[in-house]
Amino acid sequence: MRSSLTLLFAIVLCTCGRAQQTFSFLTDEQNAFVQSEVQRLTLKQKAGQMTQVAVDLIFEGPTYVLTVPPMLSEERLERVVGELEIGSILNHPSRTYPTPAEFREYIGKIQEKAMATTGVPVLYGQDAIHGANYVKGATLYAQPLGIAATFDTTLARELAEITAYELKAASIPWNFSPAMDVGRQPAWPRNYESFGEDPYVNKLFGLAMLRGYQGDGVGDSVSVVACLKHFTGYGSPLSGRDRTPSYLPERQLREYYLPQYQAAIDAGALTMMINSGEVNGIPVHSSKELLTDILRGEMGFEGLLVSDWQDVRYLYERHMVAADLKEAVKMAIDAGMDMSMTAVTTDFPKAVVELVQEGQVNESRIDTSVARILAVKVALGLYEQALYDPEAFPDFGSERFARRALQSAEESIVLLKNDGLPLPIKSDQRILVVGPTSDNMRSLNGGWTYSWQGQEADTYLTDFNTIREAVQQEFPGKVTHTEGVGFDTLIDIDRAVSLARASDIIVLCVGELSYTEDPGNINSLLLPAAQRRLFNALDALDKPIVLVMAAGRPRLMSGMSSRSEAVLYAPYPGPHGGDALASILSGRVNPSGRLPLTYPREPNSLVFYDHKHTEARNGTFNPLYEFGHGLSYTDFSYSDLELSSRVLRPADTLTVSLRVTNSGDRAGRHSVLLYASDLVASVTPSVKRLRKFTKLHLEPGESQTVTFQLQPEDLSFIGRDMEWVTEPGTFRLTVGELTEEFDYEE
Amino acid sequence: MRSSLTLLFAIVLCTCGRAQQTFSFLTDEQNAFVQSEVQRLTLKQKAGQMTQVAVDLIFEGPTYVLTVPPMLSEERLERVVGELEIGSILNHPSRTYPTPAEFREYIGKIQEKAMATTGVPVLYGQDAIHGANYVKGATLYAQPLGIAATFDTTLARELAEITAYELKAASIPWNFSPAMDVGRQPAWPRNYESFGEDPYVNKLFGLAMLRGYQGDGVGDSVSVVACLKHFTGYGSPLSGRDRTPSYLPERQLREYYLPQYQAAIDAGALTMMINSGEVNGIPVHSSKELLTDILRGEMGFEGLLVSDWQDVRYLYERHMVAADLKEAVKMAIDAGMDMSMTAVTTDFPKAVVELVQEGQVNESRIDTSVARILAVKVALGLYEQALYDPEAFPDFGSERFARRALQSAEESIVLLKNDGLPLPIKSDQRILVVGPTSDNMRSLNGGWTYSWQGQEADTYLTDFNTIREAVQQEFPGKVTHTEGVGFDTLIDIDRAVSLARASDIIVLCVGELSYTEDPGNINSLLLPAAQRRLFNALDALDKPIVLVMAAGRPRLMSGMSSRSEAVLYAPYPGPHGGDALASILSGRVNPSGRLPLTYPREPNSLVFYDHKHTEARNGTFNPLYEFGHGLSYTDFSYSDLELSSRVLRPADTLTVSLRVTNSGDRAGRHSVLLYASDLVASVTPSVKRLRKFTKLHLEPGESQTVTFQLQPEDLSFIGRDMEWVTEPGTFRLTVGELTEEFDYEE
Repeated sequence: MRSSLTLLFAIVLCTCGRAQQTFSFLTDEQNAFVQSEVQRLTLKQKAGQMTQVAVDLIFEGPTYVLTVPPMLSEERLERVVGELEIGSILNHPSRTYPTPAEFREYIGKIQEKAMATTGVPVLYGQDAIHGANYVKGATLYAQPLGIAATFDTTLARELAEITAYELKAASIPWNFSPAMDVGRQPAWPRNYESFGEDPYVNKLFGLAMLRGYQGDGVGDSVSVVACLKHFTGYGSPLSGRDRTPSYLPERQLREYYLPQYQAAIDAGALTMMINSGEVNGIPVHSSKELLTDILRGEMGFEGLLVSDWQDVRYLYERHMVAADLKEAVKMAIDAGMDMSMTAVTTDFPKAVVELVQEGQVNESRIDTSVARILAVKVALGLYEQALYDPEAFPDFGSERFARRALQSAEESIVLLKNDGLPLPIKSDQRILVVGPTSDNMRSLNGGWTYSWQGQEADTYLTDFNTIREAVQQEFPGKVTHTEGVGFDTLIDIDRAVSLARASDIIVLCVGELSYTEDPGNINSLLLPAAQRRLFNALDALDKPIVLVMAAGRPRLMSGMSSRSEAVLYAPYPGPHGGDALASILSGRVNPSGRLPLTYPREPNSLVFYDHKHTEARNGTFNPLYEFGHGLSYTDFSYSDLELSSRVLRPADTLTVSLRVTNSGDRAGRHSVLLYASDLVASVTPSVKRLRKFTKLHLEPGESQTVTFQLQPEDLSFIGRDMEWVTEPGTFRLTVGELTEEFDYEE
Repeated sequence: MRSSLTLLFAIVLCTCGRAQQTFSFLTDEQNAFVQSEVQRLTLKQKAGQMTQVAVDLIFEGPTYVLTVPPMLSEERLERVVGELEIGSILNHPSRTYPTPAEFREYIGKIQEKAMATTGVPVLYGQDAIHGANYVKGATLYAQPLGIAATFDTTLARELAEITAYELKAASIPWNFSPAMDVGRQPAWPRNYESFGEDPYVNKLFGLAMLRGYQGDGVGDSVSVVACLKHFTGYGSPLSGRDRTPSYLPERQLREYYLPQYQAAIDAGALTMMINSGEVNGIPVHSSKELLTDILRGEMGFEGLLVSDWQDVRYLYERHMVAADLKEAVKMAIDAGMDMSMTAVTTDFPKAVVELVQEGQVNESRIDTSVARILAVKVALGLYEQALYDPEAFPDFGSERFARRALQSAEESIVLLKNDGLPLPIKSDQRILVVGPTSDNMRSLNGGWTYSWQGQEADTYLTDFNTIREAVQQEFPGKVTHTEGVGFDTLIDIDRAVSLARASDIIVLCVGELSYTEDPGNINSLLLPAAQRRLFNALDALDKPIVLVMAAGRPRLMSGMSSRSEAVLYAPYPGPHGGDALASILSGRVNPSGRLPLTYPREPNSLVFYDHKHTEARNGTFNPLYEFGHGLSYTDFSYSDLELSSRVLRPADTLTVSLRVTNSGDRAGRHSVLLYASDLVASVTPSVKRLRKFTKLHLEPGESQTVTFQLQPEDLSFIGRDMEWVTEPGTFRLTVGELTEEFDYEE
């Protein structure tokens, strides 16, 4: 015993010493180069490598309100990249969305300066959340929540490939996406940036986008390095407000908030961003337990761990766990952070240097982080080629890419209700398009759209149709329009009523404007009173209402939904959202989206689809629409659910098959969702958990057999001893109305 | 090292073997007797001792719907106490609330049968939550939330003494109170049974009531054994529904959900009830970690641990962690439960016997639990005297007790707003009393009032005044009344409006009926639409509105509150609530209650007073009324906040003093609340935490100096390593608008 412990200790020491720090994603030669670079750099240069600032700092004008057009400041560039020797830059020049050629020009000057000073290329990063949303003319598509609603991971990968291509066209090699935060607080203003409430859905879509971004190798001209975010627990703030405390017991942390990151690490994720919030009282930027013990030690993450916006500073400005910047810097570095997104301040590298000089931080610890940063730069081939010729990217903003973006919009929209078949709208019907989300791009795109808050979407996305424009094109001569109300202001309800009287059908578009992070905080999931008043006025007319909820989170609409003939949920479908919606209204497109979240009925009835039995007693689990709900214009029926065996054993695979038939009269795409229920378990089992899904296309009358492969680990959970376990016993599988049981036996 | 480990192991073994199981609260002689009794009893008898059934099982008629008047069934008594040899009984005969003499008669027959079979007296228990609420004629007072609002722990102790006396008058020696669940979910239907959202308030009031119940010794004729409940985390279900999952990370569990129990254990608590819910996926009735490792091992609880209603059965019927009863029984016993409140089923003891016979449970484990049960019976002196002569309790239901109950009502009511001074109402004003809570006892008393759901309060509390009756008595000839609406039904708003037109002031009573547990679940904190419609109709009249919110939890009233001239919150003040409110309206009583909870403004803005700084950025912490808020008809001013030192050191005491002056023109009681803020801490500090409070009475113009003694442990929290710690640094003390700082130095 003692000797093996000694050996283990020696290995650990060796790893900690970092003398042999190598990266599995680099060649021996590349690893040697990284080490030689770490040796070569001065302490100050290394501190600079660990620093990431906003590109605003090298432009003329005050931060956040640069001159338009932006003017790169040679003096500021010299200060930031020359004197401070900062190694990473992010974002776009505030108030401007450069073309690829303009980005290339700016980044070219940055790289030139960097090579002339440290000789290390700068790592340029950007938040390209639903396309390269800060690059003028890039292809934008549905936000992640909308992508999840498509239940099509192939499409997700293709979309990410488009973004990688278009970022590379602008010489931007690093993307702060995908977000793998499970969105388990409906009021949270970044719900739409997650893939919904289910960790498995988040895992599969996160993996798909990671693979799309990173392609076959991040060093090629069509791939970028992805940055998983925000490790971890960010999507579950108790208060619903952004960057406020999450309370995640170890069991739930391990079952709901680590597996998606583990899968992405195993799939080659090279960088990760830290959750700005606190988990269980510990700001994650100061959590050695999460960032080192778990992320590095248990999960084997080798790559670069970057802070979120100013979060080291926030350790003392907001969280009050440090008394000043230097203490905060030491805390974050001790916790395991490699790079600080200092954003608009530049005092971080100085603090790093002082901490090392004072002996508070060991220089070898700095070397470890710098090696990780350099490893990513080497993997990207930045030393060889940091700039790309926009001309070499002919598909940038192309029609081919637009078709995929349109598809994402079409398949993200969820038909929640269609009673008495008011949809599709007949071509001879007179339509009133009305409501605050009916004629703007912000409600279709959300935040991260030609600005952080998306408020400039209508300025830059003029080539695209709002709902009003698209419906007018789809039903020429049949459409009238008025907004009736603003989001929370009255405009002219009387006019809306008068137009409605002269129409056969009302397309009432309610919901939200664009937002993200703090500005998107709300205190109530209810829609503002103005929108409810508009609904009530129109509802009094006895005309069929098609309710369109355009919103990044499930704003309440229980009364509206029950009194509307049809209900559609558009979770930020992107610039093509207007066209997609019009096509669905006319029936040219058959809707296929399904809810990746539980749509609540009342403000304080917040329970998820994977709730426990105690949360569903006596019919009390009664959301407005359940997770996975989504209608089609055709009918899909399931039959012949068959299991390859009634018994599953360790290392075996259970094949589950069923026949899916399009028994209606229209072609359509359809997602098949397989749920499993662990009937008895040592930790209270959920009523059901989504374990597999797939999407298919069926012509009218066509049938296909769908098969799923289930392995014991697909049924596992974090047991009483905090380890993953699949417990012997009976499991029930459910697909639609079909159900079958089998036993897992050890 | 090895030898000390061996020694430790031997000690552990010894403890587990229970050969020497003794109880610190018993004499040597009593301990020896307990051991001899355990030796004497058969396995079946021991299993019976571990069983507690509802008294319904020995009465005629179907369970829950016994005959009225109840008829004790000799046959059923023989079955339950004779054949099954069950050792504990609870509750009252369903649909009947016996007098002390009747209880004595029933319990006398039970004890007679028990002594004739096992020779062990039965332990009779009851939920006496706000007085002996199942004993006819007993003194009822404010519910715990209301008691907390008094901020008077002396009063709390006196109230509990009354209950102990009145229970003993009925020969009932065991009370399932106090609940020390911190109520940190506003929708939770048992909020009013807690002392509010703050763990310190819960601890102090729990201790006060424990001491009141147990007096100088539980064996005397005026004391009962208290039962702390519900260990632990019951008051924080994520969904807000009763008995649904709580998610409590270890740090928060230790800081918010254990200290009140630890304090009560240290103060001599002999019994405890288990949380029916699950914490972090583990039903607490199956949690060895909570019930044995922490409760016994760390916290040193020696006493009797009883299940809640049918909760062993629910391990397989609701939680799905056991496949059948026997597995559930083994699970609960393995976890550390001593007694199963099987309630209306009797299959538990058979399962215990079988488990022992099959070798699945060691008989020594059974002996351990039985010893704990017998120890409580011995401590109570039940072997010597299990029955008390009701005639020997002349103060039962007395005027003297009623005065205390009235005081609890008066001081529980919180004056939240009094703009333009509509209160007190002048004697010449014509008053309309209106609203669904204006004329019933249920809205003043809540659940646990002559029935579980309190629905019979109006049948049994006819001697007490509703709000209408009391206001009519207080303002003779000046009062009109109509309900206007039911809780969620329209009655006659027009009539209310018409009466309001003829009045000078409107006392509008909104809120809730009575409820507890599952039947009290809600999906929205908003009041039903009917009540809002009534308000809107009356608000249109331009008459001053005094809004009375009579409710067991903070139902939303933001719009109503802003449009009312005065607002009062009546958190189930008890049978005297109508009189108390009328006295406050007239000014005979000066209100002194303060909120023991944060009154939310909107349904999804749920943040507590002790929130983190990140939850209050940019003015976003904006509840309707803050924790501790409460107005008076006089003015209290604070001055001369002084600290005995600017530095506090380990083992030292800091004396904090301030001068409180009644600068108004009426006498009044007033609570002084001292908050501390840890400016920087390794775990994100709360903006403030309540650390001390006291209550005083001041005549007009009178001043008093209040002093608080602060010790380092009063400032402690659960640190990064999961241990209690007081960290060196600066602390800010706040009392009202006054603030002072000091440093803690090690």
